[in-house]
Amino acid sequence: MAQLYVTNSKGGKELFSFRKVYESAKRVGASPTLAKEIAETIKREAFPGIKTSFIYKTVKKLLSKKVPKSALRFSLKSGMRKLGPTGFAFEKYVGEIFKRLGYKVKINQYLPGRCIRSYEIDFVAEKDKLIYIGECKYRNLFGDRVHSMDALANYARFLDILKGPYFKSTKYKNYKIKTIMATNTKFTSRALDYSRCVGIELLGWRCPKDKGLEYLIEKEKLYPITILPSLRGHLKDIFVSERIMLAKDVLRINPQKFAKKFKIPLKHFYLLIKEAKILLE
Amino acid sequence: MAQLYVTNSKGGKELFSFRKVYESAKRVGASPTLAKEIAETIKREAFPGIKTSFIYKTVKKLLSKKVPKSALRFSLKSGMRKLGPTGFAFEKYVGEIFKRLGYKVKINQYLPGRCIRSYEIDFVAEKDKLIYIGECKYRNLFGDRVHSMDALANYARFLDILKGPYFKSTKYKNYKIKTIMATNTKFTSRALDYSRCVGIELLGWRCPKDKGLEYLIEKEKLYPITILPSLRGHLKDIFVSERIMLAKDVLRINPQKFAKKFKIPLKHFYLLIKEAKILLE
Repeated sequence: MAQLYVTNSKGGKELFSFRKVYESAKRVGASPTLAKEIAETIKREAFPGIKTSFIYKTVKKLLSKKVPKSALRFSLKSGMRKLGPTGFAFEKYVGEIFKRLGYKVKINQYLPGRCIRSYEIDFVAEKDKLIYIGECKYRNLFGDRVHSMDALANYARFLDILKGPYFKSTKYKNYKIKTIMATNTKFTSRALDYSRCVGIELLGWRCPKDKGLEYLIEKEKLYPITILPSLRGHLKDIFVSERIMLAKDVLRINPQKFAKKFKIPLKHFYLLIKEAKILLE
Repeated sequence: MAQLYVTNSKGGKELFSFRKVYESAKRVGASPTLAKEIAETIKREAFPGIKTSFIYKTVKKLLSKKVPKSALRFSLKSGMRKLGPTGFAFEKYVGEIFKRLGYKVKINQYLPGRCIRSYEIDFVAEKDKLIYIGECKYRNLFGDRVHSMDALANYARFLDILKGPYFKSTKYKNYKIKTIMATNTKFTSRALDYSRCVGIELLGWRCPKDKGLEYLIEKEKLYPITILPSLRGHLKDIFVSERIMLAKDVLRINPQKFAKKFKIPLKHFYLLIKEAKILLE
């Protein structure tokens, strides 16, 4: 077979990769046999210039027939994007992740610096005398990244806060104070270089490599509610307002009470609960 | 007379100020008598909800009858905005200003940092063992400002460059290295606070107060070419490509040669030269 070029999300051409399709199917839970089978189907049916988004949809369709759970998990990236359009829900979601990892979390805090009287901090997470000053960078556009300018500004802010009055209190004498940037997307290589060099911790898509946000989410089953296909319209806003950010939390709500309180047909909740069960089984 | 409210550029209401009109006319060269006369005319003809842009136009019209030079100078802010849409011409313009102030200027330089291998620097200006690492923030939108995030990123970049290999050379042993941000607009108060505190120098509209960009320009007659009303269309790009950034430089070109080289009617140049002469007389 001659080399086959596909059209990616930015409209550019790239070589079709059997391996990429195979790995992505396996990552969400397909067996090696099924993953191979899916990749072979795609390879057979692909044509020059086929869009990667079309390949993505086809893989998802093939998965949903065999392993419904995997098809749901396959939407993690776009599910996180659905937390938008503003960064507010993403901040709450990241706060929730840190909570489930055992941190004491406060979102939307104000901390004083030496030069600027007050910085708005997306979240502050504390565990075992370690404090993370967290900044969330939610990105709405496909392919958008977190740039070195974001990292530079984050670090200068961190330095200013460290020099400010807050952490000079004797209470924090034996604490380790760190800054962390969390994103639903990736960091540019310059942002990575700078952050590693000055010690900003990063959490993003496949960042740190093999221990990125997607890994944490998979491992602890911390899927955002927006990964559930039936979560549409203003239901998202209702869940966010109730601090129900994780798909697993849907299994804990009382559907009757919720439906009544927010005047939403009960069947919507049953659908969501069904999907959450498949996802988390 | 009852209090009169005008509509500003952002659509908000503000109190009509006789003083503001008077001062702005005087600033561009109107005599106190003329400035008072103009402000009185405006006050008499103003009506509730009148737009500040309309007041601006009327002042300009009244000025142009009496002092053509002042009317031209009155357009400095919008003239600078016309350096857009990208920041490229503004960078060249700021570089030119520093040159005329006696600095040795290089624009678009690359400097290494400790953490990032190479930063693109808008301009580097040197005089008497003082080096400015300059960043330009050109703003296209009316009322847009330079924010604290820009200042934070600027400072972190500056720290990284200082720790990098470049300025460690013995050549720079007795040099003072500073960072400066230049803009065609204003800085937010947070950006001002932070910059003053860490030592970023600022140059912007009325910043430093009474010695801002507009002061420098007036004092040294460093008006940008875009202040000339006849500079339209791609003529700006031609001038920028030839590094002719200042209105006064128009008086030095050879119109015949220029018109021939760029295939532009000679009369366009004569118009520009006429305007430049009025402006700079």
